[in-house]
Amino acid sequence: MCVAIMKGRRFSPQEASLLQEIILNRRDVRGNRFHPDPLPQTAIQSILEAAVHAPSVGFSQPWEFVLVTDTARRRAIRDSFQQENSKAADLFAGERAELYQRMKLEGIVEAPLNIAVFYRPSTAPVLGQTSMDEVGRYSVVCAIQNMWLMARSLNIGMGWVSILDPAAIRGILQVPKDRELVGYLCLGYVDEFYDAPELERLQWERRRALQTLVHNETYQPPQQEN
Amino acid sequence: MCVAIMKGRRFSPQEASLLQEIILNRRDVRGNRFHPDPLPQTAIQSILEAAVHAPSVGFSQPWEFVLVTDTARRRAIRDSFQQENSKAADLFAGERAELYQRMKLEGIVEAPLNIAVFYRPSTAPVLGQTSMDEVGRYSVVCAIQNMWLMARSLNIGMGWVSILDPAAIRGILQVPKDRELVGYLCLGYVDEFYDAPELERLQWERRRALQTLVHNETYQPPQQEN
Repeated sequence: MCVAIMKGRRFSPQEASLLQEIILNRRDVRGNRFHPDPLPQTAIQSILEAAVHAPSVGFSQPWEFVLVTDTARRRAIRDSFQQENSKAADLFAGERAELYQRMKLEGIVEAPLNIAVFYRPSTAPVLGQTSMDEVGRYSVVCAIQNMWLMARSLNIGMGWVSILDPAAIRGILQVPKDRELVGYLCLGYVDEFYDAPELERLQWERRRALQTLVHNETYQPPQQEN
Repeated sequence: MCVAIMKGRRFSPQEASLLQEIILNRRDVRGNRFHPDPLPQTAIQSILEAAVHAPSVGFSQPWEFVLVTDTARRRAIRDSFQQENSKAADLFAGERAELYQRMKLEGIVEAPLNIAVFYRPSTAPVLGQTSMDEVGRYSVVCAIQNMWLMARSLNIGMGWVSILDPAAIRGILQVPKDRELVGYLCLGYVDEFYDAPELERLQWERRRALQTLVHNETYQPPQQEN
């Protein structure tokens, strides 16, 4: 196989399996699992380094990070969550409404470190971003996913809070006009990483079978629409 | 440290370093590096499994994948690239225009496997997607970043082509109306993984220093705007 003459770091099957294990063990962690202990600076540095080594369209590196530890500021952000979440709760009915109300969906105050991640649009044209403008924001998401995996490998939990009003965050964190919130992350050590996603354990949603998500050559008529 | 009593798989510092190495060695691969050899089914399966174990808002798993190997179909998609790319080239001036023209920006036909990745919006409200609708698409991007890292750990190159007209792809791949193209990926074995991003090697863009991208507690006035 041609790969035999490849130049560059060659990973072994055991190394690929380890990555798979990190991917399978990554969880979205909420406030009922976080410890308050601060994270070591070396760990925070590793997580941020993982972020900035994500792919970015045209090597534009359009990401910026605000590290938030101040308790009053985190409480103000949690206020935004609570307002948005009470509106969201009204969208679910019956048993789901009850389950929704019982769930702990964020760890903004419980996690010792919050990181707000922003997209900074370029004022000049960006290579690769000329047909699909959204790929600038997508680069920032790749950075967040790198952070999530790096955190997990350091046995640090991370949760992504999306039930927030970006306008409120803009005020609280003094965000310049042109920046756009992509993700609001809570990080900290945890007492447990669940063996399956919490919403799967709670039977909020079921895992979809891979074969129902994959098509060959073109989209095929779905066997079963949900 | 409280982490001592953590439940769940505990990764060692060596295992965290290995993830870091995979992250640092991941590259966006273009057509001048791909081998035509088909990828083993086991590798394709591992890459897709990594995708569907990405985080998704409300465990919505809103991703779908179309695997494209047919040469005529890949040529039709490359035609869309060429049309979009000739429009894009006009946006760059002087030396940058010349460099832009010289660069090989995709491997649609050279790579043996293309995977088009789509977002499938939910018709019902999704937990966590009620305030920031874009997080559904962002879940799909997390899946793509998992694929990229998994591919790299299997010594398989991947490139993300974003210079495409999503409407053209919709026609070529018979994509249902409600699905939305998030990423178009080219995968294959490679002759080399560069030791730095190609656009950094070509001095198209410089790497930004981490400290210029990180703020504490709130955004600070920038020391140097570019």
